[in-house]
Formats: sequence, structure tokens, C-alpha cells
Amino acid sequence: MGIEIERKFKVKDTSFLKGLKGISIKQGYLYIGDKSVSRVRIIENKKAYLTVKGRTGDISRLEFEYEIPLKDGIELLENVCLKPLIEKVRYKLPVGNHVWEIDVFEGENKGLIIAEIELESEDEEFEKPDWAGEDVSNDERYYNYSLVKFPYSVWDKKG
Amino acid sequence: MGIEIERKFKVKDTSFLKGLKGISIKQGYLYIGDKSVSRVRIIENKKAYLTVKGRTGDISRLEFEYEIPLKDGIELLENVCLKPLIEKVRYKLPVGNHVWEIDVFEGENKGLIIAEIELESEDEEFEKPDWAGEDVSNDERYYNYSLVKFPYSVWDKKG
Repeated sequence: MGIEIERKFKVKDTSFLKGLKGISIKQGYLYIGDKSVSRVRIIENKKAYLTVKGRTGDISRLEFEYEIPLKDGIELLENVCLKPLIEKVRYKLPVGNHVWEIDVFEGENKGLIIAEIELESEDEEFEKPDWAGEDVSNDERYYNYSLVKFPYSVWDKKG
Repeated sequence: MGIEIERKFKVKDTSFLKGLKGISIKQGYLYIGDKSVSRVRIIENKKAYLTVKGRTGDISRLEFEYEIPLKDGIELLENVCLKPLIEKVRYKLPVGNHVWEIDVFEGENKGLIIAEIELESEDEEFEKPDWAGEDVSNDERYYNYSLVKFPYSVWDKKG
């Protein structure tokens, strides 16, 4: 169990990622419920995890993550999870006292790039790098589980 | 991962359970989806499990079960699972070549008693004991996840 406070920013210029090595993430959702979501994630085609995340109210920061056999992860993603799956390459980059995670989406969310940091508290200060654009922390469209129901490829980018 | 073929029967007379020791099961569902359900179960207040079960079509017999920390199980049941929770005492009883599981429900499903066996194949033969009544294998109302949405206490027993 853990508690998560995340800030998310759009990224337009990816030249800063040059030379960095990312890890591939393939994930899907078993369900997207009012109270919680359950996610299956495979990292680098090597390790699989099942995660339950609270969504609303007091439980919105609850997160329960368990490693599961890779074989189960593959079967859950292929046969049980909602489609489309989310595919992305994740880069990690230290800036000041924090490590940023930059997700470069592929598949039906190609074109979307999101940078994220985890904070200990709502008011913790952090250095915002030049490549971090608009703050979309509170925009639900950018949540990974929203990108299943409404992938970036079908967004109205002018809106 | 496993494959399950279950047969379920109603039980009216419970005198055969006298002297047997049951185990207490408390469980809840994180969600009840079209394709799958996810269940959290605590056994004897000691061990906790997270289980994903396929519901429909080719995946209806998929089952993925993982032991999780008891603390997580308690928190998931109390704060994340759909209500009401399912409470029951489970008895195991060998009859012929099979072990029957008899679930005596409590809480909002008090009065309901279901006996169940697992078979290797649809046409495997088994001995049906005297105390096993009506076959309700295909009656979705008796599924544990149905007993969350529509507990036995509110059924029209005359119907």
C-alpha cells in the first residue's frame, strides 16, 4: 500500500530525451470503476504487475501493487483487459531533488508525451524544467485509464 | 491460472454438518464487469487473496489468484470493495471421489446454504449426496458476486 501525489505536464519538445534509454511498458485495465481501477502492467516484456488503485474521495491515493507471473500478465492483457492496451516508453530523468518520469506513448496514443513527478505532499516544491509544458494534473483525459476509453488518436487537438 | 468447472446445489437440511469444523470466509468484489470480476477474500482472518476471474465466453474459466498481505486485504475489503461483503462459513466434506464445499452464508445472505463440487470436465460423473437439493449451477443469482448486488435477504423466496 502506498500514497501517491502526482503532478503531470505536457511535453512538446523531446530533444532532451536523446541518448536516454527508456523502458517499454504495456498495460491494460481490468476495469475502470467508480471507486477503483485495476491495472495489469508488463515491463520490458519481463515482469508483470497487478495493481489496484483507489479513484475517489479518501481512497483516491490508495495503491496496492503485486508482482504476478509474466505468463499471467500476458494472458490477462490479451484476453481479459479492456482494449486498446496502453503502450509507452518510459524515461527517467533526475531534475533537482526529484526524478521525472517521461512517458512517450505509442499505439493508439501515439503523439502524446507526458512528464510526471511524485510528491510527498500537495505543497512540496519542485523545479519545473523548460521542457515541461502545460500542467494537466487535474485533467482526467490524460489519466492512463482515460486513454483506454478515449485514446489520444481520436482527440480533437484543436479544442 | 486454472480452469474451473463447478456444480452448485441448494442445501436445505444442515444436520449433516454437525461436528464438522468450518472455516470463515469474508470476501468482496472490487468490480463485477462484463468480462471479469475481481475478488478479495480473507480466510479465517489470517490469509488474504486477490483473484481475477473471467466471466464470459472463452475466458469464463480463467482464474488468477494471488496471496496478498492481510493488511491490504482488510483495507481493500473495508474501503474499496463493493458492499455488502459476503460472509460465510465453508465446510469441506469428501463424498465418493470428490470433496464437496458447503457454504453457509451469514450477514445479508443468512439462510442461504450452497454445496459445490469442482469437476475436471463437463461430463465427469459424481455421487450426489442426499442433502444436495436443486441443481442451481446455471442460476446466476447464486453466484457470489450476484449476492452482492442482490443478497438472499431481499429475494422473493416464494418465487
